[in-house]
Amino acid sequence: MRDLSHDRALLSINSMTVKAWSLVELVEGCARAGLSAISPWRDIVQACGAERAGKLIRAHGMTVTGLCRGGMFPAADEASRRAALDDNRRAVDEAAAIGAQCLVLVVGGLPQGSRDLDGAHLQALHALLPYARQARVPLAIEPLHPMYAADRACVNTLAQANDLCDELGEGTGVAVDTYHVWWDPDLKREIARAGEKLLAYHVNDWLVPTTDLLLDRGMMGDGVIDLRAIRALVEAAGYRGHCEVEILSANNWWKRDPDEVLRICIERHQTMV
Amino acid sequence: MRDLSHDRALLSINSMTVKAWSLVELVEGCARAGLSAISPWRDIVQACGAERAGKLIRAHGMTVTGLCRGGMFPAADEASRRAALDDNRRAVDEAAAIGAQCLVLVVGGLPQGSRDLDGAHLQALHALLPYARQARVPLAIEPLHPMYAADRACVNTLAQANDLCDELGEGTGVAVDTYHVWWDPDLKREIARAGEKLLAYHVNDWLVPTTDLLLDRGMMGDGVIDLRAIRALVEAAGYRGHCEVEILSANNWWKRDPDEVLRICIERHQTMV
Repeated sequence: MRDLSHDRALLSINSMTVKAWSLVELVEGCARAGLSAISPWRDIVQACGAERAGKLIRAHGMTVTGLCRGGMFPAADEASRRAALDDNRRAVDEAAAIGAQCLVLVVGGLPQGSRDLDGAHLQALHALLPYARQARVPLAIEPLHPMYAADRACVNTLAQANDLCDELGEGTGVAVDTYHVWWDPDLKREIARAGEKLLAYHVNDWLVPTTDLLLDRGMMGDGVIDLRAIRALVEAAGYRGHCEVEILSANNWWKRDPDEVLRICIERHQTMV
Repeated sequence: MRDLSHDRALLSINSMTVKAWSLVELVEGCARAGLSAISPWRDIVQACGAERAGKLIRAHGMTVTGLCRGGMFPAADEASRRAALDDNRRAVDEAAAIGAQCLVLVVGGLPQGSRDLDGAHLQALHALLPYARQARVPLAIEPLHPMYAADRACVNTLAQANDLCDELGEGTGVAVDTYHVWWDPDLKREIARAGEKLLAYHVNDWLVPTTDLLLDRGMMGDGVIDLRAIRALVEAAGYRGHCEVEILSANNWWKRDPDEVLRICIERHQTMV
């Protein structure tokens, strides 16, 4: 396993961890903290303008470990389906403009009125893939925790994401987020199976108690996830990329000074991840 | 598939659905509604006294589809481990006293300070099993939704529960609760695998949005679960038992008149389950 105890080079900050910051503030704040990798959500890229964001990122020599996020495909009718595809193509363009290593995809929940888990996502992925391949933007399918199965993603295990990659082929891979997968009894097998398809690795923690289904994630070390064990699996599978901190936390981390949040991210990256 | 459109005989009411009621009120309320099956939690059985509860239940000709619940095994030290085992033996005694068809087990979360998912539960089940076999009380292992992996159950898929049954053998089976398993991509395979080990079938629904991790379950038909499809799987696997309604709902169903809740349970049992 890689020694992170003095590392800053392998730490990436997802913009959702420091939600108050714009893209400019994120880039400058990370640079100030001695960090060189970010992963923005689309909202701050769009607010900045993707071309301008790309220039700024390149000027600071930042690595972009991913753009969050495309997907949310399921649609009730043909017009919504087309609108979703168009929006995902724009996400590919934005990812290309900022040099993101991948576009993270959350495949979406069930279409309105549907109770059919199986049929909800595959067609849309097939439709997007040629465009993403042409733009040389790998699509990283992120399984979300089963508690998001109804409204955010009906891909809820790494096994499902790996199955999708097998079906879709070149240009696809997976994003593994410890928050979403830590409970999975098949995690070891499926991380090994993912292998070089591991495009992104997100870290954070599961708090006990968890008071909100969406916005109560924990800082690494504050919860129950055996982060060291999962990183060992990921690295044994060949992953050499960044550890990206993505923490949605309305009542704690979002209320703090982002510079302080970054300082703690670095400390926990070096001691708990 | 069995036709439930005029059925009351296959509907069982879990006491948590009408939380305000004592055991006496549960038995009398169900009898009033033309129902003949209940599944109490231990608190109301203990408040009534298990022997007296058994007499009352027999006097009303009620079927007891399960006693909820034993388990919660993991303990930080030897004294707590023994206390947990003693308490589970008392649960077996109570189940026998009220003639419960099974004792539903929730295996518990991680022991304090532990991040080892794998080692947390098996030893305790092995310790309890001889006692339960002697009392002729089948143990129904209930996988809980992965969002309870940290603090309530580290058995989070039906596959894990089936694996445990394979390892433990005679006297064990599974309880399938739609709320906990509906999202599982392996559900069809694992229900078929469970077969005659299916000891209990619990119904309810997953609301969108869900506002609380524990106490915001929905009435059948109010959420996104394809209940008819899951019952088809369960019956195809050979299950001929009751559909037990278990709804934990602090802000809705617990605030209503229990007689009205029962009336709606019956209506939804006949139309949505």
